Amino acid sequence: MPSFVTDLTCSRCRRRHEPRAPQNRCSCGSPLLVDYDLEAVGAAVTKEALAPRPLDMWRYRELLPLDEADDVVSLGEGGTPLLRPYDLGARIGLRRLLVKDDGLNPTGTFKARGASCGISMARALGIAEVALPSAGNAGAAWACYGAAGGIKVHVAMPRDAPAVNQLECRLYGADLTLVDGLISDAGKLIARRMAEHGWFDVSTLKEPYRLEGKKTLGLEIAEQLGWRSPDAIVYPAGGGVGIIGIWRAFDQLSSLGWLEGPPPRLIVTQAEGCAPLVKAFAEGKDASEYWEGAATIAPGLRVPHAVGDFLVLRAVRETGGTAVAVSDDAIREAMSLFGRESGISAAPEGAATLAAAIALRESGELGADDEVVLVNTGSALKYLDQRAPP
Amino acid sequence: MPSFVTDLTCSRCRRRHEPRAPQNRCSCGSPLLVDYDLEAVGAAVTKEALAPRPLDMWRYRELLPLDEADDVVSLGEGGTPLLRPYDLGARIGLRRLLVKDDGLNPTGTFKARGASCGISMARALGIAEVALPSAGNAGAAWACYGAAGGIKVHVAMPRDAPAVNQLECRLYGADLTLVDGLISDAGKLIARRMAEHGWFDVSTLKEPYRLEGKKTLGLEIAEQLGWRSPDAIVYPAGGGVGIIGIWRAFDQLSSLGWLEGPPPRLIVTQAEGCAPLVKAFAEGKDASEYWEGAATIAPGLRVPHAVGDFLVLRAVRETGGTAVAVSDDAIREAMSLFGRESGISAAPEGAATLAAAIALRESGELGADDEVVLVNTGSALKYLDQRAPP
Repeated sequence: MPSFVTDLTCSRCRRRHEPRAPQNRCSCGSPLLVDYDLEAVGAAVTKEALAPRPLDMWRYRELLPLDEADDVVSLGEGGTPLLRPYDLGARIGLRRLLVKDDGLNPTGTFKARGASCGISMARALGIAEVALPSAGNAGAAWACYGAAGGIKVHVAMPRDAPAVNQLECRLYGADLTLVDGLISDAGKLIARRMAEHGWFDVSTLKEPYRLEGKKTLGLEIAEQLGWRSPDAIVYPAGGGVGIIGIWRAFDQLSSLGWLEGPPPRLIVTQAEGCAPLVKAFAEGKDASEYWEGAATIAPGLRVPHAVGDFLVLRAVRETGGTAVAVSDDAIREAMSLFGRESGISAAPEGAATLAAAIALRESGELGADDEVVLVNTGSALKYLDQRAPP
Repeated sequence: MPSFVTDLTCSRCRRRHEPRAPQNRCSCGSPLLVDYDLEAVGAAVTKEALAPRPLDMWRYRELLPLDEADDVVSLGEGGTPLLRPYDLGARIGLRRLLVKDDGLNPTGTFKARGASCGISMARALGIAEVALPSAGNAGAAWACYGAAGGIKVHVAMPRDAPAVNQLECRLYGADLTLVDGLISDAGKLIARRMAEHGWFDVSTLKEPYRLEGKKTLGLEIAEQLGWRSPDAIVYPAGGGVGIIGIWRAFDQLSSLGWLEGPPPRLIVTQAEGCAPLVKAFAEGKDASEYWEGAATIAPGLRVPHAVGDFLVLRAVRETGGTAVAVSDDAIREAMSLFGRESGISAAPEGAATLAAAIALRESGELGADDEVVLVNTGSALKYLDQRAPP
């Protein structure tokens, strides 16, 4: 610290924006990406020098945007295990199966990574109140980090979002509004209230720093494998910020020369009842269409339109990945399989990656010797009422 | 590995037992403690050599009982953060307040430490089926690690144990029996079934290895403070295994010469509706009496008689600690205070430590400059239905 950030660059039109001021999207409406002086990062730190640092996501501080250590709002996020469930892998024909268990984060989901970075940067930029719509877990995570960082958080959530997420918002003292409809409807309502009150918009990809927090998922996977890529990473895409972050992580590690060989194949999975990215991928399109009548037991996948759809599709295509939809029944079975065969506590979104891996192994898209990392984005603890009866 | 275990020694009569065979209690009925050749440990490893190891509880393998690394059943337990919630500390007049957040473990509680070590040793000893009574969270943790380690787990739980714990047992494929009554009644029932079926008894302190897993809590606190003791550690005692483990951790670190100065004052807290250890401490007794009509919103504290009561009382007295009971209202308020002021997700048992710290600061038992570690034994995620309305 200070950080190695050089610019905020528009992900579409490449226009540059001042990084040390509050920024939302580019004037063209597209998300901003954080650029670093990677040459200076490489001169300042080696991958070997990271080894003795505390195992949380801030060990990668040279690749994160904070200028002042005092602004970091941390509750121990990141540093989650990369598990090798041999029996489960053998059972589904992927003997080199790995699971990145991001349920072991504050608030029980990977959303903690984005919220820790986003709230820290809000504090650094002198922002007092932030607002976002959420399918549930992101709202809970931002409420939590807001409480830790002294920033007021306003959340709008579908009325049928998991009760546990609503209770979390209250526990952390956030201002919660319930909305009839989907996350897109919650987004419309909160946008009006933000405009009225001057709250800072921290919706998915409408500020640049949530993505930087999620990027650490990719950095950790690479480091935990001894600074190399697995053959494939399977990720459950709602808004898709995590997979964009993982893509950027492997790209930055390659630029730094910390990683040999090609990046992993990035594979996204969605629920059959809400699969706009899978449809766009199959049709060879660069962007997705709004998915009418979105319905799935995985609340985090009930996102009918992802703002960063074009980035997700680019990440998947550039890395030779694929996109596959799975049924709610397959998700339920995968939750049980994770629990019974490996003791892994998987949210339905995380379980979708196991369902996808089973389908892709059967179709031959994944080979028996492929090293495949499933990203379990959350703990089953937040969803036990939705599990299939034994 | 192999381990540095020399003996299993009775905690009361000091009789020695063979460590490389399945053992429950001493013939005198008391718990067995695991002894190590600490001179050999000190010759084999330095505290500096631990630094680059993965941050889970198995980094302390020389102080754990496993002979073969292959037997270790691990899901990333331990390595939890030691947080410094400045605002919360300032608010309660303890500016050097620390929170060891053990909710960031598999199954969301510190029970994962004991279950990881216990199931690993069961595997090492060739045991196929284990059984235990539980107030809720221990059963869930053993069910989880049993699934990960391929060992069948039988759990008996009070019928009014939290629903989430019952669902976890089913998720992990354990055999769950619900009992009308308390954990002591569940214990009687499971004892009968164990005798019938020959299952190995892994009840609290009826096998030696759960305690060894819990010991890592103390090892981590010491290492996270740079190999020194805080002034005091506040722990919520149900069965009290954790505080016995912390006591042994500081004792072993002192013997190794890894720690300067005296051990921390060990302070236990219980709920006013079930406070047998607090009562025995106040009355100067060496053992506790069965607490009639145990009732509290903290299920883990609803233990009317702790098998290791005499060890808990010894740990508290030898370290100059104390024991204090807190009301359910104070626990509820402390859960909210943790959430709103610090973003820390505290189980009622963990929240009891904050309520106790507030009371002990007010009484002057804790000073304004004391460095005090609260042990948050679990995440609020498992108890949100029990939180006070906002």
